[in-house]
Amino acid sequence: MPPSPTSSQSKAERTRDRILTQAAHSASLRGIGNLTLGGLAAELQMSKSGLYAHFGAIEALHMAVIDHIVARFVAEVLRPGLAAPRGRARAKALFDLWLGWSDHPDRPGGCQLITASFDLSALTPPVRAHLAAWIDGWRATLRRVIEETQTEGLAAEVSPETAASRAFGLYMAQHVERFLLTDTGAAARARDEWHRLLASGGG
Amino acid sequence: MPPSPTSSQSKAERTRDRILTQAAHSASLRGIGNLTLGGLAAELQMSKSGLYAHFGAIEALHMAVIDHIVARFVAEVLRPGLAAPRGRARAKALFDLWLGWSDHPDRPGGCQLITASFDLSALTPPVRAHLAAWIDGWRATLRRVIEETQTEGLAAEVSPETAASRAFGLYMAQHVERFLLTDTGAAARARDEWHRLLASGGG
Repeated sequence: MPPSPTSSQSKAERTRDRILTQAAHSASLRGIGNLTLGGLAAELQMSKSGLYAHFGAIEALHMAVIDHIVARFVAEVLRPGLAAPRGRARAKALFDLWLGWSDHPDRPGGCQLITASFDLSALTPPVRAHLAAWIDGWRATLRRVIEETQTEGLAAEVSPETAASRAFGLYMAQHVERFLLTDTGAAARARDEWHRLLASGGG
Repeated sequence: MPPSPTSSQSKAERTRDRILTQAAHSASLRGIGNLTLGGLAAELQMSKSGLYAHFGAIEALHMAVIDHIVARFVAEVLRPGLAAPRGRARAKALFDLWLGWSDHPDRPGGCQLITASFDLSALTPPVRAHLAAWIDGWRATLRRVIEETQTEGLAAEVSPETAASRAFGLYMAQHVERFLLTDTGAAARARDEWHRLLASGGG
């Protein structure tokens, strides 16, 4: 008996998920833009044509791997962070979870979305726009939680826009200090700076 | 009459400089790690074997292009910045010149040393160490100028180590805001934040 459409679809989805999990892992080390169908096929011991059947051209794979990483980010950073009480606690939780996001064995070279932001040439315009949309969305969340913190009279030393840039800057600096300079204290320093910014007294 | 050894050497050096200028330009767009002898040969309309004669393996070219970029950085950022009066003026000048460094037509995709810091997989361990040495040296300079500013009673809100991370973070955040998000106000915001840090009153 042939498999029912449902179980056949779920096998295809399992395969797709296995491909994207491997692609996200490789992207942490080599960059989203450096993913190729041939390279991934070798890592997965699949045929290149099998991969092509799932994604078509490499651009579709780059888009899908961004979606896959963003879904993990929502599950591991955004959703639990937003569950914290509104205001300073939430702004702390979101940043701490973001720092922890670099520590997962699935991301041996750190956040793939950040590294891709510094390696634009290998991404087509639609993929860049997709990446930019994530950054815009995450910046908007950071601005909002800073505004909420400011209603508590805290984090008043900077505008929400500047605070969002500060959060990204702290995250990027600790990424390089950790992965290039192998400075194991970098994440803790970034966390302390963010907490200091949040605690700074306002008007 | 054959060329004298001196003029022959200077022709070789001119060719070497032409190769490295092109390599640095390409690295701003595609990353130091993505430079290949074949790609560069095509851009320069030279033979790949001609390039090989100048550099040998790609690792030597990656090392040489870092040296070339660092020499430009010394001439355009470090030396004129250190010529400013010691203290806050010097710390301002160095950071402002660093921001301006991204604006040169030779660097259409921004600072190659920063982008390479997020794309380590294509660099061999000696090249990574060479890049890390530049970052360590530039961080040490930033720490020193912050210490000098602190003797004026300014920039006291953070340690020199944290200020160096802050400078890198501001620089990296504005890089992504500018090149990925095409936010033309990003550099000015980073400059304002640095100036605010320097002006903050101390003990």
